[in-house]
Parts: sequence; C-alpha cells; structure tokens
Amino acid sequence: MRHVTACILKYCGALGSFAAVAVCALYTGKSGAQSAKENQPQARTVANSSEASPIYGVKIPPGYRNWKLIAVKSLKVGEKADQLRAQLGNDIAIKAFKEGRIPFPDGSIIAALHWTRVLSESDSRVIAGEFPGAESFVIGSAVNVQFMVKDSKRYAATGGWGFADFTNGKPGDKKLHEACFPCHGPAKDHDLVFTHYAPTP
Amino acid sequence: MRHVTACILKYCGALGSFAAVAVCALYTGKSGAQSAKENQPQARTVANSSEASPIYGVKIPPGYRNWKLIAVKSLKVGEKADQLRAQLGNDIAIKAFKEGRIPFPDGSIIAALHWTRVLSESDSRVIAGEFPGAESFVIGSAVNVQFMVKDSKRYAATGGWGFADFTNGKPGDKKLHEACFPCHGPAKDHDLVFTHYAPTP
Repeated sequence: MRHVTACILKYCGALGSFAAVAVCALYTGKSGAQSAKENQPQARTVANSSEASPIYGVKIPPGYRNWKLIAVKSLKVGEKADQLRAQLGNDIAIKAFKEGRIPFPDGSIIAALHWTRVLSESDSRVIAGEFPGAESFVIGSAVNVQFMVKDSKRYAATGGWGFADFTNGKPGDKKLHEACFPCHGPAKDHDLVFTHYAPTP
Repeated sequence: MRHVTACILKYCGALGSFAAVAVCALYTGKSGAQSAKENQPQARTVANSSEASPIYGVKIPPGYRNWKLIAVKSLKVGEKADQLRAQLGNDIAIKAFKEGRIPFPDGSIIAALHWTRVLSESDSRVIAGEFPGAESFVIGSAVNVQFMVKDSKRYAATGGWGFADFTNGKPGDKKLHEACFPCHGPAKDHDLVFTHYAPTP
C-alpha cells in the first residue's frame, strides 16, 4: 500500500487524464495481459455500484459506457503496464469540449475507461511478413474506470471537480482519492482536465 | 499506387477492423506523428461529404463522431505507422454488439476512426523517473475513417456489407474498395466484423 500511495501522489499529474490510479493498480497484481484471449475481451459484469467514492461521494453514473467519445490514449510502462484507454463524456461535457468551453459547466462528467492492451498475434503475423515488426493491439480485459464530476459549489475546494476511481465496481480508498485533485494541477489551464477532444477523421 | 494496392490486397484481412487501408495510407506519405503538437490534436474540418465510395455508394454518415464506442485498438508498423483507433457504432449496430447478434441486422453501421499516435513527452518524463521506459501516448492527428454499412439486399454479393474509406472527406478509389470484402473474409464467423465489444470497466 505504501508503494501504491507513493506512486499515486508522485505521478498522478503526469499521466494525463486520470491515469495514475490505473498505473498504480498494476502494482497490486492486477493484470490480464497474459491471460486475455486474443480478440475476445474478457466479459465482466459490473452492477451499478451503490458505493460512492470517499471524500467526493461520486457513484458510478448509470449508462456511462454509452457516452460519447472524447479521445483515446495508450500507456506503456515497460513490462509492467500496457493499456488502451478511452475517455467518454456525458452530453454536457461533450458539448463543452466541442465548444472549447473552459471552465466546464456544472453537470459535466468525464469517464476514463482503462483496459489491458494485448498483441493480436494473428493480425500481426501476416502484416509482419511484409512489414517486419508490425504489431496490432486490441483490448484484453477491463482494468478500472475513473470519473470527474463538475459541481462548482459542492466541490469548490477541489477546483469544482469531484473524483472517483472504481475497480470491479468498487471505489478505491480515501488515500487514493486524496491524490486526485493535486495530481490534476498541471492541467489547470484546461480546468484540470488533461484530455482534449479528438479531431474528426 | 502499385505498392499501396498490393498491401491492401494482401493485408486487409489481417489487420482487424478496417485496418489495412489506414496502414497503406501511411505509405502515401501521410503522417502527422512528428508534427502534431503534444496533447493538442490538430484540428480538421470535415464537411459531410457529398461523394460516395466507389462500388458501394456509401457516403459519410452525418454525426458518426457522436456514435457510441464499440472498442479501441492501436497499430504499430515499425517506424512507418503508429496509430490509435476507435470503432464506433450507430444504435442498431451497438444493440447487436451488446446482444451478440450475428448476423448484424440491416441498418447497422460501424465506423473505424484512425489517428496518429504520438508520445506525450511531458507525461512520460515524470513517470520514467520511477518507471524507466514509461511511455504515455495520445492522439496526434486524424488519418482516415472507414465504414461498414449492413444492407443484406443491396450488398448481397458482399456478405450484406457495403464498405467505404474516406481521407479528408474524400473516398478512396475503386481499387481500394475492391479489396474490402475479400479482406474481411477471415472474420466470417463474426459476420465479417473483426471488432468485438469492449467490456465495461
């Protein structure tokens, strides 16, 4: 736990949107990278959690998996972490992103979904024949999900944002959530939000 | 052009959902990986194209950027290609994915959005202090977008699917689109769709 807490405190701000908790979680032994069946993401049923995050009291927003796409990222930490990530937003957040509205209006919620990233050997094999070293990666299994909820009054002490981190539908502990607000400091010019809206191809 | 066509024909099936065209496009000199400003995706305005794809007559579906998320992938081909990718679906397609319905019903549309993947040096630098080799990647710029449109009557000769590939709002040529259907053959057990629905973290 000491190691986990230390790494959260030290690296939260550097990891982009809500990344640090996920990175740290990898040091608690959670990894599906080796066991995930290629191209067949492991199913996981997550009930709408009745538990709220410590400090902020944020619950899992129902239906967040159906929200619209803000952007996509990936994270690699040597052999220890390899993730594909998507940031989704509720309608209020998406509208603000599109309009470039800063600060985000009350009611904005941003979700960061993290999965293990696994090599698709069947895809890569054929490509590598012509393009040596080609690697195609797909989602392995779910890791965790994190939320930022904008309420300028309720969360006035933390930049107007409430934070939450859930693994298997269960919120992380108080120490984990104490790190969220200070970690997002480097993104203060973007209302503490690291993620930017991906362009339309 | 010869090289591009050859690679499409050879590797389309192997690259997962709609990947081959994007890979090949990278050999036409299109890459924003070096020029993209970190964490600030290049803006691109794409009008709703009035042009349709050859063979299939598929136009860019209005509002596809707002569709729901199916999954996320990444692709790396040595120093030549590095992409983050998202697959989105219209409501009919998303419902079918969730229900595991095969074949997909008429009206299903799947969009594959491809962007360059660029290293976020500011993110990576701090993480690497504790975790050498850590790399955090974000979207650089848009590459292309591809669509599969299900219409079992209109596209009876191609498994019920119509295909399209657009770069900067312009459809690729006939040769490009001739490769789509045979390339998707390896996914015949999943109605020619490589992508699977990502689990909910």
